[in-house]
Amino acid sequence: MPALITSYSSPEPECSSFELRRKIRRGEIKGSTSGLARTMQANLIVLPSRYAKDFRNLCMRNPVACPLLEYTTPGEYRSRLAAESDLRTDIPAYNVFKDGKLVSRRKSNIIDEWTNDHVGFLIGCSYSFETALKRAGLEPECSKRNLAVPMYVTNIRLNPAGVFSGYYVVSMRSYKPCDIPRVREITGEYIKQHGEPIAWGWEDAERIGVRRKIELDQVDFGDVVPIPEGEIPVFWACGVTPQVAVQESRLKGTVMSHLPGSMFVTDLDPEDESLLL
Amino acid sequence: MPALITSYSSPEPECSSFELRRKIRRGEIKGSTSGLARTMQANLIVLPSRYAKDFRNLCMRNPVACPLLEYTTPGEYRSRLAAESDLRTDIPAYNVFKDGKLVSRRKSNIIDEWTNDHVGFLIGCSYSFETALKRAGLEPECSKRNLAVPMYVTNIRLNPAGVFSGYYVVSMRSYKPCDIPRVREITGEYIKQHGEPIAWGWEDAERIGVRRKIELDQVDFGDVVPIPEGEIPVFWACGVTPQVAVQESRLKGTVMSHLPGSMFVTDLDPEDESLLL
Repeated sequence: MPALITSYSSPEPECSSFELRRKIRRGEIKGSTSGLARTMQANLIVLPSRYAKDFRNLCMRNPVACPLLEYTTPGEYRSRLAAESDLRTDIPAYNVFKDGKLVSRRKSNIIDEWTNDHVGFLIGCSYSFETALKRAGLEPECSKRNLAVPMYVTNIRLNPAGVFSGYYVVSMRSYKPCDIPRVREITGEYIKQHGEPIAWGWEDAERIGVRRKIELDQVDFGDVVPIPEGEIPVFWACGVTPQVAVQESRLKGTVMSHLPGSMFVTDLDPEDESLLL
Repeated sequence: MPALITSYSSPEPECSSFELRRKIRRGEIKGSTSGLARTMQANLIVLPSRYAKDFRNLCMRNPVACPLLEYTTPGEYRSRLAAESDLRTDIPAYNVFKDGKLVSRRKSNIIDEWTNDHVGFLIGCSYSFETALKRAGLEPECSKRNLAVPMYVTNIRLNPAGVFSGYYVVSMRSYKPCDIPRVREITGEYIKQHGEPIAWGWEDAERIGVRRKIELDQVDFGDVVPIPEGEIPVFWACGVTPQVAVQESRLKGTVMSHLPGSMFVTDLDPEDESLLL
């Protein structure tokens, strides 16, 4: 079973992951990459090398929220998961932090900021299982309405690792209670892409500290999406978790990440996680 | 760096991991295996094969509490981590559960219960980092007093996986606040053996739901160990977690485990986790 997909014959998405990265590099695609690729997409975190070991441990100790797909050697900006790629240019938009503060938003590349001391971390994303849910007739409400998935910072602590600690961020999609077993089963196959939900129902929403936000139509990231009559909220661990953890750990030096929603497009088949760490 | 240790010249522990397993198989060692081996020791869970995928996912989604070292194919009772081993006989004492109920305690072997449908799971244990703490002059109080480490069921939920859900069980050792950074650093190296603590101090004890138990001299497993003046409780995720999760998941059929404290002795060097999953 080949895990690397280098071209498509399917009419939609219309171009290969390689061509897509080239278009992004040329600035022809600026916003969200949701639905643009059939291949696995990834969150990016770039850190000074002195934090790399602790961050790798943070991921290994919290693989549901921070499923580590790849990390580079210091200075290496090519991903092994994407042919002829460049982590500094192949994402539509980047955020740059200095000494823990956001200093530059929506940058089109990070060539000037990248140094020989920077390490890139690619972390799994939930776009792939959203496609699988759609295929099964379980398209999330946010997707039907063409909105970003709503995301909430919870009270669930990450297992700490060295300088890093923090809380789970979850994405929320609503389903009928009778659909939960199938939703769990379908998304549970995507182990390196957050896997099955970590909580569901209003009691769980209360327990993880997000019920009131939902009831008040508040979100921490993404869009407010109404929950249809007869459905309950279902929560998945979310790849924004490590970004928040990194911001709150007040690291010294220059840290970079993708703009949430605008991901790095790999060449990996999302159904085949066998090549991963 | 060789990861398999097959013999020792050191006077203590006095015999190789291979000889130790043979002694255990012959019934010459009946109690705790703490301190008997320099090699990595492991918790054992044996499940009917229909639960194997969900249990493997439980471990992968909760690697700090359930660090999976190895799982066998159905019916295979030899571990790849221990030469000429037999998971049915090479542990001093076993517990046997039928349909979720403990039906047999402290069995010397599980040859009669084991079927071609059983899958064995070996899960990391904290004995190795206790040795490292001792070497660094940070011997835990329980070890100084020759008591079992006190263990508590917390209110921290595991990330659910299929039929399995549950709560973290933690082991507690007390330290002076000024020693916490070194304690974290030393144990943090043992990624597949629970790694660094997940919580420390009285506020954390309250938050994870165990403060009152400590103050009332209660434990859920192990021995009550007093906390010396000037020290605070430090909590590590504990390998009893999957046993409790398995018991509470009310599985059908025959499930087996080691008796807590009486571990499976592998041939692995505890300092080298590179051969592991």
